[in-house]
Amino acid sequence: MSRIGKQTLLLERSPVILGSASSVGSLEASGPLAGTFDHVSDDAYYGQRTWEKAESAMQAQAFSLACTKCGVLPGNLDMVFAGDLLNQCTATALMLRETGIPFFGLYGACSTMAESIALAAMCINAGYANRAAAVTSSHFCTAERQFRMPLEYGGQRGPSSQWTATAAGAMLMGSEGDGARVTHVTPGKILDTGMTDSMNMGAAMAYAAFDTLHAHFRDLDVGAEHYDLIVTGDLAFVGHSLVLELFRRELNVELTNYNDCGLMLYSRDQHDINAGGSGCGCSAAVLCGYIMRELNSGRLKRVLFAGTGALMSAVSSGQGESIPGICHAVAIERS
Amino acid sequence: MSRIGKQTLLLERSPVILGSASSVGSLEASGPLAGTFDHVSDDAYYGQRTWEKAESAMQAQAFSLACTKCGVLPGNLDMVFAGDLLNQCTATALMLRETGIPFFGLYGACSTMAESIALAAMCINAGYANRAAAVTSSHFCTAERQFRMPLEYGGQRGPSSQWTATAAGAMLMGSEGDGARVTHVTPGKILDTGMTDSMNMGAAMAYAAFDTLHAHFRDLDVGAEHYDLIVTGDLAFVGHSLVLELFRRELNVELTNYNDCGLMLYSRDQHDINAGGSGCGCSAAVLCGYIMRELNSGRLKRVLFAGTGALMSAVSSGQGESIPGICHAVAIERS
Repeated sequence: MSRIGKQTLLLERSPVILGSASSVGSLEASGPLAGTFDHVSDDAYYGQRTWEKAESAMQAQAFSLACTKCGVLPGNLDMVFAGDLLNQCTATALMLRETGIPFFGLYGACSTMAESIALAAMCINAGYANRAAAVTSSHFCTAERQFRMPLEYGGQRGPSSQWTATAAGAMLMGSEGDGARVTHVTPGKILDTGMTDSMNMGAAMAYAAFDTLHAHFRDLDVGAEHYDLIVTGDLAFVGHSLVLELFRRELNVELTNYNDCGLMLYSRDQHDINAGGSGCGCSAAVLCGYIMRELNSGRLKRVLFAGTGALMSAVSSGQGESIPGICHAVAIERS
Repeated sequence: MSRIGKQTLLLERSPVILGSASSVGSLEASGPLAGTFDHVSDDAYYGQRTWEKAESAMQAQAFSLACTKCGVLPGNLDMVFAGDLLNQCTATALMLRETGIPFFGLYGACSTMAESIALAAMCINAGYANRAAAVTSSHFCTAERQFRMPLEYGGQRGPSSQWTATAAGAMLMGSEGDGARVTHVTPGKILDTGMTDSMNMGAAMAYAAFDTLHAHFRDLDVGAEHYDLIVTGDLAFVGHSLVLELFRRELNVELTNYNDCGLMLYSRDQHDINAGGSGCGCSAAVLCGYIMRELNSGRLKRVLFAGTGALMSAVSSGQGESIPGICHAVAIERS
């Protein structure tokens, strides 16, 4: 039995991360993580005619680079787990239609990278796949017009609103090899605290993040200091502050090793991004870029990557529904 | 190792189907499968104020009935795999927000029920879950206004167009118990034959269905006659005919035990549904209703359930993209 505690899975065979790659836009590449991405496009259209095709091209770029870095042909992958924020996840479907890889489509909003890694690692651990990939993307221009307003409208953004990253990340995992390994998965529950402000998704997701992180520590019977880095993606300033506050108030724990991909990708002083980054490409690119480099260099040994998603749509928000939040956590360790 | 052949997984522990339930609208309940559903609502609004909330209520109804029939409290499920056709799958997220069950959100268009069952059964087989659920839904009124036109517009429908079923299905699986069992999973690849007509999704998905079915038979080294029933969902008249034709032309095989949920749910003489049914609730309700009854009664022993999805959106179609198709197959057997 691979379950430990109530909610966490122990992956006894610890699937290895064969490699990863990221592709981002010029804004993302000009921030604190400059130099950690594999590909940067100065053209928001990625050479395509529409932003949706651009997002698909960006995701293809990250996926192709990850395969190349690992020396694995896409056709030699047994499965790919992927998704994005577009209606019906078309950036992913169009990207993968040439590859001929068995595909499980996921929708976890900004938690999609963690969900994809979780399921890919679970399938490798169970012997269902020798090699599998997790891929996701988001694009500022597709997300704005789909979830909010056409860009030309120039809508105002509140101080708690987040900036959807133009970014994609791809990670290849395998049953054999050297490198950082996925050791545990804590799948998250949907939690809805009644928040209805779609300009404050960080607050809507914070409790789900706290719940999953708390469940993970409880199931492993470890404290937060077990990890060198606990990183959510993407709660940004408001949600990150709330998670710190929840740990302090509910558990009397001061998190000192906790960061958020939405805070790491941009500089709030330098970039006009309000509370920070969001979009499933944000946490994917920060993980596949900066965090994997730190793990591979040995500067980080144990990372808990906790993807957070706001499971709302423009229609559900318009109909007055509150925002369900979710958070999936994946432990990545290097010996 | 649980892989057999190139693409199929053998689930050695054969997770058992503990029970299933379906909820449908009055049109669906008036067809050839009348009397096989667990719940019928004469009110397309399911007592809610919007169609989106109605779809969520319908899905909740199916899920709740399935739990009741199995004598399992939702909180005693280890995982749920679910999704729907709404943008950002909100029918599912809103339905599950009260349950506190670890949740993996999926998007596979009309293949979502097969995808959900596949992953739930794979997780039980691997020991990640003792009990897991697969749930999905679709609603004619939410789908029409989201993918096509507002209902009030009264848009014309071509002869190859399909009717999105107002239907939901839920299946509970477990590691122990009596009943039909999930024995094999063949995850599908995306195949795109260049079809751009969103009024002909059956044709767009037919090749993916043929490809997955062919892979399944090849991997198991069996002929189609190995199964009492091979059932796709949902190709309807055009896609079903094309699959028959592809087997005839490519493999010289005459399928005599092949049907499609989109053909089974409605009567094309009695109902004005053009080529037949679609929507992920269609195959879910036909499987969780009629097919499971036939399996439980022993009239069917071996069923290959092959969910088919058209991975397009209104935006991708509007931008001239062709329609990527996918098909996931799940073998269900009863001794």
